[in-house]
Amino acid sequence: MSRRVDKLGQVEHFDSGSYIDAIGKRARAAAVEMARATTQSKNDALKLIAHNIEEAEAAILAANIEDLAAASALDKALLDRLQLNPERIAAMATGLREVADLPDPVGETTDLRYRPSGIQVGQMRVPIGVIGIIYESRPNVTADAAALCLKSGNAAILRGGSEALKSNAAIAACISEGLRRAELPEAAVQVLDVGDRAAVGALLGASQWVDVIVPRGGKGLIERVSREARMPVIKHLDGVCHVYLDASADHNKAFDVALNSKTQRYGTCNTMETLLVAKPIAEQVLPRLIEAYRELGVDLRGCTGAQALHADVTAATEEDWYAEYLAPILSIRIVDDIDQAIEHIRQYGSQHTDCIVTEDLAAARRFMAEVDSSSVMVNASTRFADGYEYGLGAEVGISTDKIHARGPVGLTGLTSQKWIVIGDGHVRG
Amino acid sequence: MSRRVDKLGQVEHFDSGSYIDAIGKRARAAAVEMARATTQSKNDALKLIAHNIEEAEAAILAANIEDLAAASALDKALLDRLQLNPERIAAMATGLREVADLPDPVGETTDLRYRPSGIQVGQMRVPIGVIGIIYESRPNVTADAAALCLKSGNAAILRGGSEALKSNAAIAACISEGLRRAELPEAAVQVLDVGDRAAVGALLGASQWVDVIVPRGGKGLIERVSREARMPVIKHLDGVCHVYLDASADHNKAFDVALNSKTQRYGTCNTMETLLVAKPIAEQVLPRLIEAYRELGVDLRGCTGAQALHADVTAATEEDWYAEYLAPILSIRIVDDIDQAIEHIRQYGSQHTDCIVTEDLAAARRFMAEVDSSSVMVNASTRFADGYEYGLGAEVGISTDKIHARGPVGLTGLTSQKWIVIGDGHVRG
Repeated sequence: MSRRVDKLGQVEHFDSGSYIDAIGKRARAAAVEMARATTQSKNDALKLIAHNIEEAEAAILAANIEDLAAASALDKALLDRLQLNPERIAAMATGLREVADLPDPVGETTDLRYRPSGIQVGQMRVPIGVIGIIYESRPNVTADAAALCLKSGNAAILRGGSEALKSNAAIAACISEGLRRAELPEAAVQVLDVGDRAAVGALLGASQWVDVIVPRGGKGLIERVSREARMPVIKHLDGVCHVYLDASADHNKAFDVALNSKTQRYGTCNTMETLLVAKPIAEQVLPRLIEAYRELGVDLRGCTGAQALHADVTAATEEDWYAEYLAPILSIRIVDDIDQAIEHIRQYGSQHTDCIVTEDLAAARRFMAEVDSSSVMVNASTRFADGYEYGLGAEVGISTDKIHARGPVGLTGLTSQKWIVIGDGHVRG
Repeated sequence: MSRRVDKLGQVEHFDSGSYIDAIGKRARAAAVEMARATTQSKNDALKLIAHNIEEAEAAILAANIEDLAAASALDKALLDRLQLNPERIAAMATGLREVADLPDPVGETTDLRYRPSGIQVGQMRVPIGVIGIIYESRPNVTADAAALCLKSGNAAILRGGSEALKSNAAIAACISEGLRRAELPEAAVQVLDVGDRAAVGALLGASQWVDVIVPRGGKGLIERVSREARMPVIKHLDGVCHVYLDASADHNKAFDVALNSKTQRYGTCNTMETLLVAKPIAEQVLPRLIEAYRELGVDLRGCTGAQALHADVTAATEEDWYAEYLAPILSIRIVDDIDQAIEHIRQYGSQHTDCIVTEDLAAARRFMAEVDSSSVMVNASTRFADGYEYGLGAEVGISTDKIHARGPVGLTGLTSQKWIVIGDGHVRG
């Protein structure tokens, strides 16, 4: 059973299964229309939604204040993510217009070639169908995720955090109105108006209605979705990212990349958590780096070799090598060579983003070929692992899985390819 | 618990979980080596295996005779699939050499472009890791599946039917020997030597060792695998394929495509099961087609309109429209227009392969855009939906799912793409 509080404050109980069934059926029908919607009408809808969000600023902020008041017992970081302000609302509208400016992936036909039989065979990019997105706190995800699903010709079922119900409803109203005015089905984007776990459970079981599910949030949410979902999941669990400073590294590039990968932002999944340094250059590059980290207040934990280089480096435990700190903490290990670096990444890494700093082409080639992560970098900060930086436009998430989408998932990750065969009455002999 | 009969006929019982764990661990280690194996060594292994299979013809046939004797109670079709002969053994060797001749997909880097930040971003094709393949009866799948996994740089765990244990073991010996002589890890291809359900259950649960699972066989097997697998599954359930003869169809092309799609082979998943005919041309094209089908002994079931055109057409039931006959049976429906044809395919189809016969470009464009099947065809027999015909070389299966691989799955479907970023000390601002 799910529960919902209506406008008069009355609590309503209802069956989660039939609630999700009704929503799923509408989404499936909308997906058929969205798959054949023109690029023009999808872009019109995106721009109308952007306009509506700007116009509704006061109403969205008022709804957000209600959510914040009800959530005042929650911790500060969560309240910050929940809070909207005029800048964040303007950013949502900008994001929608940016997605409108991206090329439409739907219908792109590639590799259409003649075969010896005389038929032409190629592949056409098509929407996946119905995308479910489950997220927490940040109400701006409602607009961002809707934009990506809409532009890629899919229908979306969005389930935001229970603490953001009113903010999300206010944004959802802007989306519905935009879809209606662009003459697209309103059910192309449905935002669940219940916040309980039973509704999420029903959604995760509805494989007949939902083709793929994308969880965005903390590890607890992602683990639950992975465990319960009866449809494919696009997700990443951990970002235990490494930078390896090779023996042949340019010392200045090593300094810049290692410092930026850790300190440009601490709480993001593409932030470096472990620095690996080749023994031959450790004494030359590490002391200066350690000073720079210390100046920024980074807590340093290292192997015995790293500890010997600086008094501020405390002993790293086995758990440190597995840790995704998401905080000003860094573990440092001195390794013998590239083999040991690759082996360390294989054992402790999370297949998210790993970087080598080197001037040696053979080392770069080996690292790129053998490190099995969604992004493998040479001489560039791990912080570049991002849909915008890769030119995808916005991203719906970063996948550390290997099937379907891998790394930053943008519009293309929300599509599939079907085979197209064109003949002139050809038959098989 | 699993059971295995040893060479002396003794039944051995052992724990399925630890059996699969040991195999999985070996496969994972082999996958690391296979991912960096050179194209040359992989091709060497394929050619050596082909040679070994030819040399071992007598031993493979002797093992096969033992399997056939033990399986004599099974039905004739199954025994035919199980039976090997010199031609089938030669075909296995040819298949292996053909895979050796295919281009190596691993390492292919595409779309490497400069971004405004100065970094270069592209995608590199890499093996998935460990592929599990579960199949029935046909021992040749052991060689075919091993070849595709090996060439794509993956490790494979193969579980054939319990009725083919000895035949598969004889082929597995040829594979191991070829891998060893090419200096590749023997554990790159492991063939389970137990035939019971408990071992399959343990394999389907081993998501830490197996990255993707491919079931090949009857509907019962595929449904079980889909239900129990804790890792992604590449599969197709049904092939309810349609040919729609549009009002603008050329009558000769319509005749050729409709006849070939049904009668070139009856038991294949890309065989047409339902013929849709636009009302304006039904009287001109259907009688001649019906005569041709009847001559070949095809049992015809139709809507009232189709029944009115020929005495041999009996009434189709609702179940007929959903049926994958895999037999000389065809259901025929006369539809008003392309809208009704697309609607029929959406309701009753299985998203496998569907074809329109038309001379009208607008109709062709609509059908290609709106029919949501893994292969959509214009003026070509549905029988072309096949890895060889599409130029993929051999196929490991045909997927009707939309995530990852769709349609015929060849070497590319057994790989993934990771992001490659190359800079020169670039950091994010």
